[in-house]
Amino acid sequence: MRGPGCKEEQLFVASMTTAFERAQSMSSSWAASAVAFLCHSCSFICNKIKSVFLLLFSISPTTEKFEFLTNSKTFGWKRDTSFPFGLTNELRRQKDGRRFSEGSPAVLRVKWALAVKGIEYQYVEEDLSNKSDMLLKYNPVYKKVPVLVHQGKPLAESLLILEYIDETWKQNPLLPHSPYERSQARFWSKFVDDKCMPTVVAAFSKVGEEQQKAAEETRENLKRLEVGLEGKRFFGGDNIGFADIAIGWLPYWIGIAEEVVAINLIDAESMPKLNSWFHAFIDIPIIKELLPPRHKLLHHTKAFLQA
Amino acid sequence: MRGPGCKEEQLFVASMTTAFERAQSMSSSWAASAVAFLCHSCSFICNKIKSVFLLLFSISPTTEKFEFLTNSKTFGWKRDTSFPFGLTNELRRQKDGRRFSEGSPAVLRVKWALAVKGIEYQYVEEDLSNKSDMLLKYNPVYKKVPVLVHQGKPLAESLLILEYIDETWKQNPLLPHSPYERSQARFWSKFVDDKCMPTVVAAFSKVGEEQQKAAEETRENLKRLEVGLEGKRFFGGDNIGFADIAIGWLPYWIGIAEEVVAINLIDAESMPKLNSWFHAFIDIPIIKELLPPRHKLLHHTKAFLQA
Repeated sequence: MRGPGCKEEQLFVASMTTAFERAQSMSSSWAASAVAFLCHSCSFICNKIKSVFLLLFSISPTTEKFEFLTNSKTFGWKRDTSFPFGLTNELRRQKDGRRFSEGSPAVLRVKWALAVKGIEYQYVEEDLSNKSDMLLKYNPVYKKVPVLVHQGKPLAESLLILEYIDETWKQNPLLPHSPYERSQARFWSKFVDDKCMPTVVAAFSKVGEEQQKAAEETRENLKRLEVGLEGKRFFGGDNIGFADIAIGWLPYWIGIAEEVVAINLIDAESMPKLNSWFHAFIDIPIIKELLPPRHKLLHHTKAFLQA
Repeated sequence: MRGPGCKEEQLFVASMTTAFERAQSMSSSWAASAVAFLCHSCSFICNKIKSVFLLLFSISPTTEKFEFLTNSKTFGWKRDTSFPFGLTNELRRQKDGRRFSEGSPAVLRVKWALAVKGIEYQYVEEDLSNKSDMLLKYNPVYKKVPVLVHQGKPLAESLLILEYIDETWKQNPLLPHSPYERSQARFWSKFVDDKCMPTVVAAFSKVGEEQQKAAEETRENLKRLEVGLEGKRFFGGDNIGFADIAIGWLPYWIGIAEEVVAINLIDAESMPKLNSWFHAFIDIPIIKELLPPRHKLLHHTKAFLQA
């Protein structure tokens, strides 16, 4: 277990988690109270000596992480209001307040990027059903997660946060050197948000002809995405990069939704490049260990689609 | 008049213009045929000697530019299918095939960026009513302008093109040095596309209560935009930068639409920072001279809103 420590960075990444789930996590772990106490003490001391600091909590050696919401007024955080699939926060709450509380794709992107860079951070949760004043202060425009707070300054919008991370910490570059390749990485990342996301939503939420049409459009978009993998193992080339991190969540979520709705969108035969890439991508330990548990996502997806 | 020349760059930027308007331009200028001939000859020669080249046509010393569509198979081009305000190309054509044929905001961004960098280019027109195979080849995903073709490689999406231009030509940087400031510039540029554009459209296209609501939302968004100008003359600071170029079209178009629909969205009293910024921005000669003529935009806007 790595405890909180004072460093030169004040950097926070947080996601949505309902009060219910947070309470559940806390009661399931004896370490929660100890971590809370340590966090609070360190926060207090660090504030007093006017230094900036960085905290990371990990209370078990498994892939399950414990993230803690501190009460410090200096902390920033983020909450997902953009998932699943473009539904508003309000809509999701009506159906199931706890849905997708782990693993918002936008949040996952930032987690992955920080992991690739080897940057420690404090991950702060947020109660989905009650937006905090601090979230509204740090992200008044979009009012959603992720928000990355670094050196007291908040950054919003996951793809822009990835750019910031890459420009701030130079090790293990996410974007390639060539302007054209950089543009391509940004293009495919944006393409997934602009084009793939809406059709994937429709493929799993519509029925009958509309569903078939959306599924067909999704397959077309995914086939297009394979262009970005032409002659390469990853979108980033031999190693993962910006676009891999931005797109990596997609096949994982699609795979889970495919278990719930009888639609096939990605398979090794029709999209060999995308299929190979995805398996190579999630086989990377730092990528794999940050994926939200499959059984939880499956449960949430079922509840969402049956609602 | 600067004639076509062979250089190390093969760089093309083009916009939509109907065949009708192109014909009109050509018939109104005795120089068109001469330029066409020169262009064609140079293109042919350059292809033969396997060099890459750059062309710029400007047939008069006024702000009116003549852009020429060559027949060379090596040329890229772009067409606007994203303006006005999110209507599809199909919708626009039904109403008025010639509407907003000059001055697509997305195209204007690229023109401005290249002007700031001092990069010469060939600007190639496209017949709005008949998508070319080359456009579909160069931008198969979005099928719209702008497309920037540089060294034979096409780039799409105006904000991504600005990034590319800034990374390729280092003079007169568009983005600042600090990662945080860079992130802010990207954030406000994206904000205008994501948030301002839809409400501006609604403010001018809806009626009654819906219109009032959209106008109110637009004002709120524009007020938010003023945050990006806090303590600065331009979004870029003392000089124009990425966000100025990305956002600069907005007040110009709003001003024109305000003449047609009796709604006030921006004024010196309610949004002093935005108002001052905009006047300072369009007072810059290279910015001003690329603005589409006001009377043409006014005519098109009237036709659009009355349709």
